[in-house]
Amino acid sequence: MLRFDPHNVRPFLDDSAVDALWPRVEAAHNALLNKTGTGNDYLGWIDMVNDPNDALLEDVSALAAEIRANADVFLSIGIGGSYLGAKAVVQALTPYFGGSGPEILFAGHHMSGAYMRELLAYLEGKSVYVNVISKSGTTLEPALAFRFIRQWLEANFDDADQRIIVTTDPEKGALNELRKEHPYRKYIIPDDVGGRFSVLTPVGLLPIAVAGIDIHSLFYGAVAQAKALKVASRDNDALTYAALRYLLLEGQYDAEVFATFEPSLSGMGGWWQQLMGESEGKELKGLFPASVQYSTDLHSLGQYMQEGQRILIETFLMAEDDGGDLEVPSSAANLDGLDYLNGKTYTHINRKAYEGTAKAHTEGGVPNMTLWLDRINANAIGEAIYFFEHAVGVTGYLMGVNPFNQPGVEAYKKEMFSLLGKPA
Amino acid sequence: MLRFDPHNVRPFLDDSAVDALWPRVEAAHNALLNKTGTGNDYLGWIDMVNDPNDALLEDVSALAAEIRANADVFLSIGIGGSYLGAKAVVQALTPYFGGSGPEILFAGHHMSGAYMRELLAYLEGKSVYVNVISKSGTTLEPALAFRFIRQWLEANFDDADQRIIVTTDPEKGALNELRKEHPYRKYIIPDDVGGRFSVLTPVGLLPIAVAGIDIHSLFYGAVAQAKALKVASRDNDALTYAALRYLLLEGQYDAEVFATFEPSLSGMGGWWQQLMGESEGKELKGLFPASVQYSTDLHSLGQYMQEGQRILIETFLMAEDDGGDLEVPSSAANLDGLDYLNGKTYTHINRKAYEGTAKAHTEGGVPNMTLWLDRINANAIGEAIYFFEHAVGVTGYLMGVNPFNQPGVEAYKKEMFSLLGKPA
Repeated sequence: MLRFDPHNVRPFLDDSAVDALWPRVEAAHNALLNKTGTGNDYLGWIDMVNDPNDALLEDVSALAAEIRANADVFLSIGIGGSYLGAKAVVQALTPYFGGSGPEILFAGHHMSGAYMRELLAYLEGKSVYVNVISKSGTTLEPALAFRFIRQWLEANFDDADQRIIVTTDPEKGALNELRKEHPYRKYIIPDDVGGRFSVLTPVGLLPIAVAGIDIHSLFYGAVAQAKALKVASRDNDALTYAALRYLLLEGQYDAEVFATFEPSLSGMGGWWQQLMGESEGKELKGLFPASVQYSTDLHSLGQYMQEGQRILIETFLMAEDDGGDLEVPSSAANLDGLDYLNGKTYTHINRKAYEGTAKAHTEGGVPNMTLWLDRINANAIGEAIYFFEHAVGVTGYLMGVNPFNQPGVEAYKKEMFSLLGKPA
Repeated sequence: MLRFDPHNVRPFLDDSAVDALWPRVEAAHNALLNKTGTGNDYLGWIDMVNDPNDALLEDVSALAAEIRANADVFLSIGIGGSYLGAKAVVQALTPYFGGSGPEILFAGHHMSGAYMRELLAYLEGKSVYVNVISKSGTTLEPALAFRFIRQWLEANFDDADQRIIVTTDPEKGALNELRKEHPYRKYIIPDDVGGRFSVLTPVGLLPIAVAGIDIHSLFYGAVAQAKALKVASRDNDALTYAALRYLLLEGQYDAEVFATFEPSLSGMGGWWQQLMGESEGKELKGLFPASVQYSTDLHSLGQYMQEGQRILIETFLMAEDDGGDLEVPSSAANLDGLDYLNGKTYTHINRKAYEGTAKAHTEGGVPNMTLWLDRINANAIGEAIYFFEHAVGVTGYLMGVNPFNQPGVEAYKKEMFSLLGKPA
């Protein structure tokens, strides 16, 4: 189970402030669970874990097994919520230097022509399966990539249509138009689940399953967490997290840094940035969400964290067991001066780096909190996903914004489409 | 040559503010070049490009050629400035899906035991060369990694000592101690060049050259830029950049986002973050430096950029020619609705995405500037490196801080070493 540790906020925020806020926190929590708040037509991500669809999990697992048996490369085409969740979970739960099964690649998450040209060359001669993920099918980045990839598949495989899986709207959109002529297999993006909350729908589940990750464990981690977070009391850690973030935002703090000490968890930072930034960053409000990977970034952003403008709060994502139980070997002459660490594990040393950092940042004026996973596995990642989703819904309601829309994302698209001469 | 475009700052800052500041800007610039400001014992990065050492460039190139001929993997061990510069340049200038020559890997840039265990397994059976980069030799992350890697090399190669190159202090430190027993080849980190300014010393040059990049072009890009930026007039773009950043920081803005539209340039964002954050983030001052990769992050942080707290400024790094001249192919039935782009290149479309974004962000209240490279090659990257280095020196002096120290980085180390029981 998750463990949430907010004790390094205490020097910055009196407990009475949390007490005073708590009735509003409970009201926000109830509005979320009872679907009485703004954006309540986008709460399918809660229903989903309250009423798990095991048949869907099995269906996705079966297709993933077929793909794992036949593909050298599995190419996931999507952007934003159709990319970041799968990327985060796959990165967290697969080896650093390649695992078994198909290589998982991404496309349509930007518009680099060099990348597309080199990708097409790289795919040459490989058995490729493609999952294109887009509700409308017209989001430019994935649509454009899919046109290139589709034509490449058709030129290279007699069974191209069998190698394409679309994850899209139940009925509408360009991908459903294409299915009128091509019998692509299809998964549905539920109408009531926004992109940044979609990692536990087929949007995220198929790429994650193809990577060999147990999606049943992942999903049921979220299910368990949703059960644990039903209570409205002070025992609800997601509510505490939501309340503290809100109170700090109302104070002097403008930005929140998501920090890990295990590089495999840095993708979770990218997913978390979208979740937080898109849910809260509106009406000129919100904590600007940044993401760092320690101890790497202690030697880059560490100086600013310690002594720059005091506008920062910090959320650590840690694992009690980080899988790093590798012992420091002794050395003949201690010429490197490290013999005091002989027999200690990387896990131990990394943990002390975290403890030292949390202490130094607290003393330097950075309120910080830690979410602890038991270990880095599918179940724990599923728990963390739901924890942050629930928390951001509550913070959004406390802030008085609709945490489930993203009107500002249209602004650049509108300008870009105008410059590109897109027909009305 | 670089082109700097600050016109999207104009709606937020009157030209008269720049005029009024300019005498101080010129004074800061002169203090930098004449070495009369604080931290003036760390200005070797300017001397270096004013008086290029061609013999060193040739020596590094020759060793790199030897390594390229013999290594499957080149492992660079370093953290902070001993990692980010090489990583940025290698990422910018090598193909997305692997190029020719040895695979460039990094270690010692964090303390993940899982990473080290999997790295050692991955290296099995490969011809490995190692470059360990650390001035003191006792920075914990690289020192620890080097103990593991050194023992692995000694167990696997009769000529282990020939496969290790140290880049370190002229005389002092743990790596020089090790050299008393092992005849490792060695490069020197100049005493007057700090880590974040060291990419054009052997710290960055050796890994970059092993990646097959022309370090002569890279270095001479910086040389040319240093010449161009000698003048103290309003024609000096680095001074304009420094002045605008300072004035915006003095205004309502607290954070600066570094944005690219080409994923290969995103490593430059990591390098830039250290350069800016460590140079300015002290005495409770400085713009918090964040880094994004568009259009990916327009579908994640884009909402916040457009409508969140108005505390953000933005610096784009773009290339006139981004290498993406791949034309959109026509499609039979236009079922994806993209036929209006037929025959257009990715470069064109990506450029319109940038233009749309810059316009939308300006209208949304985010002052933004763009540094244009001619193309993404070694020369242009060298130019950009010097541009940002010069600019941050000037901004630091305008802010009244020493841009060349990093006292805050010690705080976490002190706590960590105490927790680890390191002998005094």
